[in-house]
Amino acid sequence: MPRPLYVARPILPERDDFIRLVDEVWQSRVLSNGGPLHQRLEEALRDHLGVPTGLLFNNGTIALLCALKMFSLPPGSEVITTPLTFAATAHAITWNNLVPVFADIDPRTLTLCPASVEKAVTARTSAIVAVHVYGTACDVEALAAIADRHDLRLIYDSAHVFGSTIDGRAIGTFGDASVFSFHATKLFHTLEGGMITTNRPEDAESIGYLRNFGIKNEDEVVAVGINGKMNEMQAIVGLLNLPLVAPERDRRRRLRAAFGDFLTDLPGITLQSEQPGVTGSEQYFPLVVDETRFGRSRDDICRELRDIGIFARRYFHPICTDFGPYRGKPIVSTRPHPHAEIVKHRVLCLPFHGGVDDEDVADIRRVFTR
Amino acid sequence: MPRPLYVARPILPERDDFIRLVDEVWQSRVLSNGGPLHQRLEEALRDHLGVPTGLLFNNGTIALLCALKMFSLPPGSEVITTPLTFAATAHAITWNNLVPVFADIDPRTLTLCPASVEKAVTARTSAIVAVHVYGTACDVEALAAIADRHDLRLIYDSAHVFGSTIDGRAIGTFGDASVFSFHATKLFHTLEGGMITTNRPEDAESIGYLRNFGIKNEDEVVAVGINGKMNEMQAIVGLLNLPLVAPERDRRRRLRAAFGDFLTDLPGITLQSEQPGVTGSEQYFPLVVDETRFGRSRDDICRELRDIGIFARRYFHPICTDFGPYRGKPIVSTRPHPHAEIVKHRVLCLPFHGGVDDEDVADIRRVFTR
Repeated sequence: MPRPLYVARPILPERDDFIRLVDEVWQSRVLSNGGPLHQRLEEALRDHLGVPTGLLFNNGTIALLCALKMFSLPPGSEVITTPLTFAATAHAITWNNLVPVFADIDPRTLTLCPASVEKAVTARTSAIVAVHVYGTACDVEALAAIADRHDLRLIYDSAHVFGSTIDGRAIGTFGDASVFSFHATKLFHTLEGGMITTNRPEDAESIGYLRNFGIKNEDEVVAVGINGKMNEMQAIVGLLNLPLVAPERDRRRRLRAAFGDFLTDLPGITLQSEQPGVTGSEQYFPLVVDETRFGRSRDDICRELRDIGIFARRYFHPICTDFGPYRGKPIVSTRPHPHAEIVKHRVLCLPFHGGVDDEDVADIRRVFTR
Repeated sequence: MPRPLYVARPILPERDDFIRLVDEVWQSRVLSNGGPLHQRLEEALRDHLGVPTGLLFNNGTIALLCALKMFSLPPGSEVITTPLTFAATAHAITWNNLVPVFADIDPRTLTLCPASVEKAVTARTSAIVAVHVYGTACDVEALAAIADRHDLRLIYDSAHVFGSTIDGRAIGTFGDASVFSFHATKLFHTLEGGMITTNRPEDAESIGYLRNFGIKNEDEVVAVGINGKMNEMQAIVGLLNLPLVAPERDRRRRLRAAFGDFLTDLPGITLQSEQPGVTGSEQYFPLVVDETRFGRSRDDICRELRDIGIFARRYFHPICTDFGPYRGKPIVSTRPHPHAEIVKHRVLCLPFHGGVDDEDVADIRRVFTR
């Protein structure tokens, strides 16, 4: 693969397939607002993801904004989430006039630690936003038990787990709602895009209102909705990308095995543990570098790779508790249980997509094993 | 024009021009996040709109959400706006944890009435969101005077006034910020899309943060931003649509003259008055039907047109004060000064785009003059 080599490289439909569907749009002149291609994609994705309810959005962040709005959480109430995630997770909480409270992560799976969540619950807590980060799943049973015990809403940020299952059950059916991202960096993408899924068919109506200004019909506006609409061009990309996901995932599985060959037993290098029963989405390939045991730091590796045109990323650095707007705020359990504080200095995501070839793997191997 | 005939019909680039730029995107594999076509469009629009600061967004509503967020208005403070507007205006205020307060409209221009705004100001008022509705401008001088006197932020919803000027000055430079919509129904569109413009170059940085998760660089997240990013496919449509705006506007000007020929002196029919010095954007063609003088109601006309396949729209019915979430809320001056209450039963937008032909005009004329 020609350098620079980045962490992600989007899949792309065949140009001629794309043009064929563009011609359909030019013909109909329906460009957005739930057009025919949007409808086809929404159905195809519900089927593919195995969810009774699934509504497309213009991006995953707006989908998360709306998923949080669905439950009419009390203004100013606390929502427990993880600091090791993309900024969208925390910001969507704050934008909805809720207070993000950061619990700690499990150092093996790098997902939200249920015990830390339990400690973070207060009388003001209204919800948990857990993130199936990098591509493995959260401990859904433990989180569900906590949510049940304290009567909290449980929302999953599923941006990284397109098509995953847990013990054969579709990941988008866990919790009260699940939010997918179809950004260009994701295994499956629609340029920008996202989806809210739930396990309850009756949710489709209220999510639809939030997505489209609360408009019920020509005479009634029944909710404070915004514009979360995906346009027809995004829908085309999605329709054509969907069959490309399986072969891309296979390429990434082979790449995971190739990386594993030299990383698994390397002292000081730890790979993310998978929850039992989870089929991975193959979104990212994170690893954790313990400088004292490995001899070099995460940042050393990152620099050495960059010197040969390979741009690994320190996802997710900075973690949310280091963001300007959250730094001074009460953070329940990250600092006293500082797994996220340690991991933020150690985690690195390698280039992970179908364009990474044997030569790239060999070069990366040399950097790690020299 | 074949029926059904709708209020709006989007302009569309030549298919081959579109494919040429799609090939550029397929080549670069840059699909979003401020890619090269996004940058070209943003510059072209700043130039076209005559604004020092202009940042693209994925849609106008998200742009308005971010424009309101820019000014750190006190949570729960009141924002005075018009009830005669699309739902996005009021909902963006509410979503930002602010309280929309609906003042009345001027019955001639149908825009927010400055005297009514003045009456609606309280100690809790923090901003005014005025809408240049249908395509004419607000009374910008009177509104600026009120905003100055009470130290309020003044934001314009400019969704309908692409390319307008007031006494030669670009409309996107008035007030503290202006928000355009590039939805498919607009004179200029990017499928879905929008822009925040301001008259202060230094605003670009903070708007950029709000649009992209508050990310300053690889090490710093400095604001609670969301995802307002326009993707490259939307940017292509915008780049190719921009040169099509002038001829489309000319067609609409001729159509306005043709409608005016038979509507101007029709008893009981009133056309929207333009503010002096405003060059219109030619977005919509609204008229107000006084049943007692005209002999038939707005809804009669609407039905008669529908019977011949012409779908005029009762924009903006319902008005915001009739929406479920706002109906029970304090509304300062709509009901005591009920111009909006009257207009909501009387206003009708005719089909208004380059696809309306002489035969359509003749059919519409027959319905009005029979």
